[in-house]
Amino acid sequence: MHPYLITDLVVPASSKIVFIILDGLGGIQMQPGGGTELQVAHKPNLDQLAADSSCGLLEPVSPGITPGSGPAHFALFGYDPIQYNIGRGILEATGIDFPLTEKDVVARVNFATVDKEGKVVDRRAGRISTETNARICRKLQDSLRLPENLEIILAPVKEHRAVLILRGEGLQGEIQDTDPEREGVAPLEPKALIPAAEKTASLVKEIVRQSRQILAEESKANMILLRGFAKHTQYPSFKERYGLQALAIAVYPMYRGISRLVGMRVLSNVHSHEEEFKALEENFADYDFFFLHIKETDSRGEDGDFNGKVAVIEEVDRFIPRVRALHPDVLVVTGDHATPAKLRSHSWHPVPVLLHSPWALVDEVKKFDEINCLRGALGKLSSLNLMPLVLAHARRLTKFGA
Amino acid sequence: MHPYLITDLVVPASSKIVFIILDGLGGIQMQPGGGTELQVAHKPNLDQLAADSSCGLLEPVSPGITPGSGPAHFALFGYDPIQYNIGRGILEATGIDFPLTEKDVVARVNFATVDKEGKVVDRRAGRISTETNARICRKLQDSLRLPENLEIILAPVKEHRAVLILRGEGLQGEIQDTDPEREGVAPLEPKALIPAAEKTASLVKEIVRQSRQILAEESKANMILLRGFAKHTQYPSFKERYGLQALAIAVYPMYRGISRLVGMRVLSNVHSHEEEFKALEENFADYDFFFLHIKETDSRGEDGDFNGKVAVIEEVDRFIPRVRALHPDVLVVTGDHATPAKLRSHSWHPVPVLLHSPWALVDEVKKFDEINCLRGALGKLSSLNLMPLVLAHARRLTKFGA
Repeated sequence: MHPYLITDLVVPASSKIVFIILDGLGGIQMQPGGGTELQVAHKPNLDQLAADSSCGLLEPVSPGITPGSGPAHFALFGYDPIQYNIGRGILEATGIDFPLTEKDVVARVNFATVDKEGKVVDRRAGRISTETNARICRKLQDSLRLPENLEIILAPVKEHRAVLILRGEGLQGEIQDTDPEREGVAPLEPKALIPAAEKTASLVKEIVRQSRQILAEESKANMILLRGFAKHTQYPSFKERYGLQALAIAVYPMYRGISRLVGMRVLSNVHSHEEEFKALEENFADYDFFFLHIKETDSRGEDGDFNGKVAVIEEVDRFIPRVRALHPDVLVVTGDHATPAKLRSHSWHPVPVLLHSPWALVDEVKKFDEINCLRGALGKLSSLNLMPLVLAHARRLTKFGA
Repeated sequence: MHPYLITDLVVPASSKIVFIILDGLGGIQMQPGGGTELQVAHKPNLDQLAADSSCGLLEPVSPGITPGSGPAHFALFGYDPIQYNIGRGILEATGIDFPLTEKDVVARVNFATVDKEGKVVDRRAGRISTETNARICRKLQDSLRLPENLEIILAPVKEHRAVLILRGEGLQGEIQDTDPEREGVAPLEPKALIPAAEKTASLVKEIVRQSRQILAEESKANMILLRGFAKHTQYPSFKERYGLQALAIAVYPMYRGISRLVGMRVLSNVHSHEEEFKALEENFADYDFFFLHIKETDSRGEDGDFNGKVAVIEEVDRFIPRVRALHPDVLVVTGDHATPAKLRSHSWHPVPVLLHSPWALVDEVKKFDEINCLRGALGKLSSLNLMPLVLAHARRLTKFGA
């Protein structure tokens, strides 16, 4: 079933669905003969939950493909990550609650340091403070001189990161990154990747040229590097597609941003795992679908900190009884992608998933990890197919055909 | 991920990839309660390698489909075997190093014996000698009288097998085989399968008519049977698609031919397994990707020689330590398809595969065979998805999306 046909089968129901997403959950063995992060972690509650559930492994995009956070979450939410390839700029903008319009082309900005010859010497401008960032954004926005029908917005995010928004008629997002992604070389030209983007590309070129002049006196942030250009488009919402009133509970802005793109309501006042699970409890009566995001499994994986990632899994394990006590109709625990500590990065490896529901086929899996889940009832499943399966277990899909 | 999008994610790397392909490797039990060829073989090195690897089963095309050698290898190389359905004639031509052009329509020729009524009595003309074959090809090429703007080439291959090349403007390959694939009946008409191929079909009809006259005096090879018509097209190369300098090491011409179609360099001076593995060692520094092909697993399978196929597996097993000693970044052992001795032919059964790499998730599989690999981390995988997975493990793919 094509995921977009699912909408035709959606029926009203009062069931509750909870997604606990541990970012970068999947792992591999750190050394031959060792265990994965999930195998090593002491997690009695997750193991008991797995024993009471259908288990399996999620393939985020397709075999061998390492997804970024955007595509990985879109797939979990049942939105084709290839059709809806979100730009980095859009992600950043939604993460700071910036209200985008359909006239906007958006890019992620890195403030950087260049030398006299224009070569990048620090792609993060020594991680300038967020205050300096805000001052520089104001300075740029006040000083840039561009055609009257073009509105330019520079919105600070954090440290060296900001968002550039070009707002106007007929803009196109198919523009090459100027960020060379390494140091010792000059920024790249913002070339148009399709003929229709030529006009926008020449505007970006002018913005880059003026920015260098405006920032010339800055000691660290004397240049902007742009990447992930994209035109903002409206996505169908969770309500439209699935009939679900959805709430996102996430500490990190980017994940709030992704959730907002698919029409979830987003809590902005949570700052810890304890606050996240408390928010789930407090809001449980008011929504149909809950996306609770745990960032640190991914962060520790990216640090190469195997034991740190194990500790995050163990900490989340202790919250599981509180989630079960809410008796959601469907409870899913999984990750958006793998971030093996051994690789220190996102990876292509499939991610363990468990689906708990009174309507789930309970398999023989008693431990929640990459190896045991291979024998699970869900088998290996494209992330894109998770939502239809979840809606079915929530009794929210009617029969297809007579 | 559509396999053709993979190219966009390819990044440079110095990693080495080795494919050891045992043709027709997969099997089934010869009798109830018995083992498959792989289960019966004593193969300590392959079993140890499996224990250190991700294992699974490859589905060459799709469930129930028995592939020929062309589609099976194209799928292993990551080229859609349905989009790129190589004609048998093209395969034969590339196997004898015949330089094809984009004006060529090619068919495989069987010299055959027909009786006075024109019915086929021997589809292989008593397996005439290769010398007789060459003489007859010359005779045909000298005697055929066709329109001036059409060039006809008859290239001998071996015994009763040859290649027919029609070279000219506007030719089309959609022509029905004339080989009836059984004896006691007359050859079929070379019908056009699409209207645009009518002109080519009438030329082929004329070639068949004249050939019967020219060969009338031959005692055995008094007729030609044609099959696998196809127009030659250029395929994207391994270098273009994956950034890989690839080397093919194969004793049999057809496999060298397939490799050449995707731009691999091909060694022509190897005549035994020992020479193949020696060539791998000697060329290891100079390429990124190595395709080493073992033919005899398939040949013994086609002979119905279960023990013979077991013996080939055991022989290859003894070379595995030499391959491991090279420390390739990714080592794959699998087959292009199954050729169960019980069936005496190619089959549709999935084929065991192992993928060894420092970045592989090591599963619980300790024996390399059809049953144990069912529990492997790779699960059941379309052959077409193998290359993206291999490139990922070779750290040659960047992240998809932000």
